[in-house]
Formats: sequence, structure tokens, C-alpha cells
Amino acid sequence: MNSQIAESRFRVRYAETDQMGVVYYSNYLVWMEIGRGDLCRKCGFAYRELEDKEGISIAVADVQCRYRAPARYDDAILVHTRVKRVRRRVLTFTYEITNETTGQRLAEGYTTHVAVGRNGKPCSLPDRYYQLLSG
Amino acid sequence: MNSQIAESRFRVRYAETDQMGVVYYSNYLVWMEIGRGDLCRKCGFAYRELEDKEGISIAVADVQCRYRAPARYDDAILVHTRVKRVRRRVLTFTYEITNETTGQRLAEGYTTHVAVGRNGKPCSLPDRYYQLLSG
Amino acid sequence: MNSQIAESRFRVRYAETDQMGVVYYSNYLVWMEIGRGDLCRKCGFAYRELEDKEGISIAVADVQCRYRAPARYDDAILVHTRVKRVRRRVLTFTYEITNETTGQRLAEGYTTHVAVGRNGKPCSLPDRYYQLLSG
Amino acid sequence: MNSQIAESRFRVRYAETDQMGVVYYSNYLVWMEIGRGDLCRKCGFAYRELEDKEGISIAVADVQCRYRAPARYDDAILVHTRVKRVRRRVLTFTYEITNETTGQRLAEGYTTHVAVGRNGKPCSLPDRYYQLLSG
Repeated sequence: MNSQIAESRFRVRYAETDQMGVVYYSNYLVWMEIGRGDLCRKCGFAYRELEDKEGISIAVADVQCRYRAPARYDDAILVHTRVKRVRRRVLTFTYEITNETTGQRLAEGYTTHVAVGRNGKPCSLPDRYYQLLSG
Repeated sequence: MNSQIAESRFRVRYAETDQMGVVYYSNYLVWMEIGRGDLCRKCGFAYRELEDKEGISIAVADVQCRYRAPARYDDAILVHTRVKRVRRRVLTFTYEITNETTGQRLAEGYTTHVAVGRNGKPCSLPDRYYQLLSG
Repeated sequence: MNSQIAESRFRVRYAETDQMGVVYYSNYLVWMEIGRGDLCRKCGFAYRELEDKEGISIAVADVQCRYRAPARYDDAILVHTRVKRVRRRVLTFTYEITNETTGQRLAEGYTTHVAVGRNGKPCSLPDRYYQLLSG
Repeated sequence: MNSQIAESRFRVRYAETDQMGVVYYSNYLVWMEIGRGDLCRKCGFAYRELEDKEGISIAVADVQCRYRAPARYDDAILVHTRVKRVRRRVLTFTYEITNETTGQRLAEGYTTHVAVGRNGKPCSLPDRYYQLLSG
């Protein structure tokens, strides 16, 4: 099992807030995607390379996010991303999103993905990436 | 139980696509929010009025979305939104997102919400809105 | 000169607001893009077709937007889009954005575009599209 | 005249790309806003503080952006932000956006802003912020 944990850090953008004065809920999914990119890098490859060289994308099949406390403009955000499960065609990542300054948990969730080729059809992850993600 | 179903129609915006050539996954949550607004209207009130007059927001506590087929730029999208459950402090909505032209199901999901006051603390829905959402 | 004017209508999305309680400024550029799409349709073609069939994209080279009054959640927005100038390789569109309910002008601006091929290099608009956009 | 230059660094997010395979044009305005936040910090205050403590927002009145070369997913972006002009009620910032890895200029532009109070009406910048921004 892959025990790598990616840590992604950034500040909340003004554009990410809404009129409730907090981060709009869909932006957490964007943050999860930053986490996935950083986790790939930590495992030894750039996600970009998978798309560019292999013509393979990791399409999202399912997402779940639980919101515990609001994030606000300029807050320092920390995302912990882990590989939960890797199969040849299906991957699951989990995420914990916290306010780095206060340590407060803001949200957590998971995403499930399928590998798809340039034709949009499901395919297997090339061995190199499967191994790297398996840890 | 509230049997109202809101139908929301719009076209995919270019801004909503990503380099995979399909709609980026977080945008489905924005579409769900359009569905919620239309459902409130169908139940007899504007969501805006709830925030402006009553000082109450319907904060998202949980979201789940399953992606079945990709949406593309300029596709005609149809969102069906239903109230699944209404309590004084907790609401659940469900969503079905389809390509209106082909009839293909693109995604489905739910969101759970808690009513919060101007101070950010959970509160009860005012009776009028509770009744309207209960159908 | 092309005297076509596209009218695009939609409501402000919650996701488009920011913590100032008004629409975040970059979203007006998304609205301009909706206007461009509707103007293409009015001229007789789908922008999508230009990209899919001809492999030509209309990349943005320049944008200017002046903001006159804020837009708020759920406001009914009306965008008027016009072709200002068409050359084989360069196009300019102008936009007027108003609150349809009050008639108040919210913003106006223009975008300049260059036609680019699949290789990302500037190219000429195919004659059919040049004629349609020239009106 | 304020000679401060803020340097903001981040990677392009997948969510920021569009089906043309490059960053969608409205996202450059979000990057400009990151630059403004960093420039405020460099001048000695958090923009958040201006809104929270003083009840004053810096609303955008005008934006212009020229796009020179595309940005792509995962590119390392560097934004240089400067104060161009500060008056009691009007501010202008300028921006240069480059690919930090290649040094290629991607875009440049400016934004003009007016200070507005909680009532949405124009007002003067409090002296402390005026002095800090004047440099």
C-alpha cells in the first residue's frame, strides 16, 4: 500500500469566496485536484506527463466531500492527499483539508477515478504509473 | 413529502471545459446550485429572499456526485432537482444531470445542507420556508 | 459591416459572487464569451463547429472591461454582443452588459481575437466564417 | 512613487485550463488579484484587514489585459505587480505575467479601482493605507 502523503499549501483566493463570506463549495474540488497533482509528483511523475506522453487521463468517476468549517479569504490552506486504492483501471484518493494556521479541519473527502485513453474509453494505467502510484 | 421537481436548462460554457475537452468536475456542483435556486422558486420563494430578509443561509454540509458521461462545450444541459428530506435544520436535495439533446444521463448526486444564521451558527428554518420546502 | 446583435440572457449564479456580495470581476469575461457564442449562432454557425470541423480556435489577444455598477446573485443579466471589426486573422467584439430588470448598465468592453490553427499558430479564418461574421 | 514590486508564484491549476488546452482568459484576472493581495502585504498590510477593520473594499472599475502567449497546466507562473498611481479614491495597479521556467512573457495589464464603503458608495482610503500604498 502506498503510504505517501502529499502536502499542498496555498492561500484562499478572493475569487473563491462567495457572498456568504466563505469559500464556495465547489472550490474544494479544485483544491483536491491540486492535491492529486502534488501526490503524483511525490510518487515520482508529473500528472501532465501521463496526459502528454501516454495520452491517458485520470477522469473523475465519483466525488464526495464533507464540509466541517468554512474557509475564508487569505486563509492558509493545507491539503493532505493520499492514495487509498490503486487498481489497473480504478484509483481512489482521499483528502483532508485544514486551516494551517489554526489546525482546524475544514473538509475531507475522496475521489474515484478511471483511466481513459485519447478516445475517451477506459483503459489500464501503464505499468510504470501503476507501480509508482502503488508505492 | 415534496414532489416538486425543478428543471434547469442552460448550455455548457467554454469556461467550464478543461484540457481534457470536457466539463471540469467541480462545475457540476455549480449546476446543482442552479438547480437548488430553481427548486426554491418552484416551491414559492427566492433563495435570495431567505438570505436577504431572514439572514439565513443554507450552507452545504455534504456533497456527493457520480459522473457517468462527459459534458462538452455548448451541450444543452438539463438538471432535475428534488427535495429529498426537510428537517428544521437539515435539508437534502438530489440532482440528475442529463444531456437534454441526447437524453443521456451525465451525473447524479445529492447535497445536504444546514441552515445557518448571520453569526454562522446553525439555526432553524423559519416556518414559512420550512412549509414551502416540505411541499 | 455586420449589424447583428446577439442578446444573451441568464441569471447570476451564486458561484459568481464574492465576499463583497457582488459578482467577482473575472466572471464578466465568461459572460462575454457566452455573448460571442450566441453571436456566432446568430451569424449562422456554431462556434463549436469552427473548432471541431475546421480545427480553428478564436484565441483572445486583448480584453478591456469597464465596470459601472455591481451585479448581484440572481439578477437577470442581458448581454448585447456585436462584431466591431472582422479581418481574415483578427476580430473584435464589443459587449454591453445590463441588468435586464432595471435596465441599468453594469459593464461594457471589447475583446480582440486572432484565429489560430491546431498547431497554435495564427491563421486565416476560412472564407465561409469570414463571410458570416462580416454580415 | 511606490517602487515596491510584489512577486507571486503558483502553478497553473487543471481547473484553469479549457478545451483549447491552455488557460482560459478570465483566470488571468484572478491571478492579478493574487498579485494585488501580495502587493498589499509587501506594502505592510493585509487586504483582508482593510475590508474587515475599515469596512472598505477596493472595487474594480476597469481592467485591461493583453495576452501574448498561452499558459498551460502545471506551468510555473510568476506575477509582478506594481502600484502605478494612488489617489485618495482611485488606485491603479499594473501586472506582468510570465512563465517562470522559460521567462516568456504571457500577459500584461492593469486594473483601476475605487475605494468603496460598506454602503457601496465611493469613499477615501484611510490615511494609513494611502500612505502605505504611496510607498
